[in-house]
Amino acid sequence: MKINQFGERALIQRISGLLSGGGNIVVGAGEDDCAVLDTGNEEYLLVTTDMLHRKTDFPLQMTGSQIGWMSVAVNLSDLASKGARPLGVVMAMGIPPDTEVEFIEEVVKGMDKCVSKYGTKIIGGDTDAHDELTLVGTALGMVKKERLIRRSGAMVGDLVCVTGHIGTAGTALMALDKKIPVSQEILKALFEPVPRIDEGMALAGSSSVTSMMDISDGLALSLHDMSRAGGVGFKIYESRLPVLSDVKRLLKGEELLEVAVFAGGDFELLFTVAPEKLDKARKACHLTVIGEVIENGVFIERAGGVEDLKARGYEHFG
Amino acid sequence: MKINQFGERALIQRISGLLSGGGNIVVGAGEDDCAVLDTGNEEYLLVTTDMLHRKTDFPLQMTGSQIGWMSVAVNLSDLASKGARPLGVVMAMGIPPDTEVEFIEEVVKGMDKCVSKYGTKIIGGDTDAHDELTLVGTALGMVKKERLIRRSGAMVGDLVCVTGHIGTAGTALMALDKKIPVSQEILKALFEPVPRIDEGMALAGSSSVTSMMDISDGLALSLHDMSRAGGVGFKIYESRLPVLSDVKRLLKGEELLEVAVFAGGDFELLFTVAPEKLDKARKACHLTVIGEVIENGVFIERAGGVEDLKARGYEHFG
Repeated sequence: MKINQFGERALIQRISGLLSGGGNIVVGAGEDDCAVLDTGNEEYLLVTTDMLHRKTDFPLQMTGSQIGWMSVAVNLSDLASKGARPLGVVMAMGIPPDTEVEFIEEVVKGMDKCVSKYGTKIIGGDTDAHDELTLVGTALGMVKKERLIRRSGAMVGDLVCVTGHIGTAGTALMALDKKIPVSQEILKALFEPVPRIDEGMALAGSSSVTSMMDISDGLALSLHDMSRAGGVGFKIYESRLPVLSDVKRLLKGEELLEVAVFAGGDFELLFTVAPEKLDKARKACHLTVIGEVIENGVFIERAGGVEDLKARGYEHFG
Repeated sequence: MKINQFGERALIQRISGLLSGGGNIVVGAGEDDCAVLDTGNEEYLLVTTDMLHRKTDFPLQMTGSQIGWMSVAVNLSDLASKGARPLGVVMAMGIPPDTEVEFIEEVVKGMDKCVSKYGTKIIGGDTDAHDELTLVGTALGMVKKERLIRRSGAMVGDLVCVTGHIGTAGTALMALDKKIPVSQEILKALFEPVPRIDEGMALAGSSSVTSMMDISDGLALSLHDMSRAGGVGFKIYESRLPVLSDVKRLLKGEELLEVAVFAGGDFELLFTVAPEKLDKARKACHLTVIGEVIENGVFIERAGGVEDLKARGYEHFG
């Protein structure tokens, strides 16, 4: 069978099953946003890697600097979702040989801008000649053992929360695709995603969060990932989704739902909080409560009633 | 100016100059085989990343398992050259969507075989749809602070040593290219490179080594890298180069020199040892003394006299 008949999540599951686990691995391949290692020290070491490339991940309108920024941000977002403090990023760059050196310099400056903003550094890398611009970042982070937040851990009755706004990056992508003019704020959400490092660390420090991940593959798919990881279900409310008013002016009904819950590209944190700890979480960061944890299933309540929320979103090999 | 007019080493230097260093970075981008971080613990944390892809790095004769093995081995070799103990490897895989799942399973099994052999694990990764099979490994390791071996540190009068045999992988590549039949031993050196993890750790533990790197880009280029890093020169002797007798039967004169010092692909360790500590180093691992450290320049003594050893070898964007 070929990979494209198989799907990304099934492939990851198949691959993970072939690997010898155990040893110093606390969280292994395919289990969470980051791998987690116990190195015998006070804190866990977290590692995450993300491959981005020209055709799929960098719309033509992006500048070199934005491409560099994004290649770092997507990795920092995975650290953020586990409550970790970034330790450094290495970057492997596959570069078409006829690329202008100045363009690569812009990309590297964008990488450096992003790591600097979040208190870390580019510590190393590799360069390689490649047909297509391909950037593979690997981010390292640390978190106190008792502060690590997993995808699992949500309890029935917990509140479901997100940081920031959702659907903005999806709106930008749709607008570029259909050549509809949109605001800089909307485009920036797609081109310069903000990794929620500060929010992730503050939430971890608040001891109020029971489970967390980022929603880079879209809210719906992420809820299903957390459902599978934690053995719980979710019910969210369309009316509570934090969507920019600019986006609401542009899109209605099914189109709005599409960008808000199925499109990927928003690097917000999705997390669960026990109701009595909501105040603590609110002190840690700005958040919106969008639903609650239930026994099983993933549902959305809309004007027309309660619907199944399908496990559909951003998948490679789609 | 375009990248291919610029050369890989010049590009890396340019990129490294754009990055904010400092902080917890002991050894940063472009300086050595690995980045080295001080995480406030007893040991340094080492990180290295390497991008390999179908066209350039995996001859068509390689099996899936060998491709997986190699993608891990090249990264472990970088850890080995700093004397580090491997902690784990993450692997980002760019896969053409029409690839058979069974082939990817073979690749993953090859990765697992290699990490298992050297006492470590695949701890995480990423999968991505890509036109060309692209494997980007990132390996983490640890080493006691006083045991870290750098590319710099060689003293005039030190002996220059290598592990194993050199020129074997280059001979295999040439044989495949010219369709000359060669032994399995020769082919295996190219298809299943042995990362010198055990040798690297033993050498670090012996406190006999003043500088070290791996020779994956070829002996000549590596000597020039160590010359630049350490502010010293090298003189090696053609007659002392450890070349398999099978290779010597096949190649003579300039062709033999070409594979032994200019071709890349041998993942042996190149290191320097004070003469009075040679016995200690020999107890740590099997080695061959191939020359000595001099004030400056990189030379090779051959039957015809002493020649400049050019900084030529495996470079991307060549």
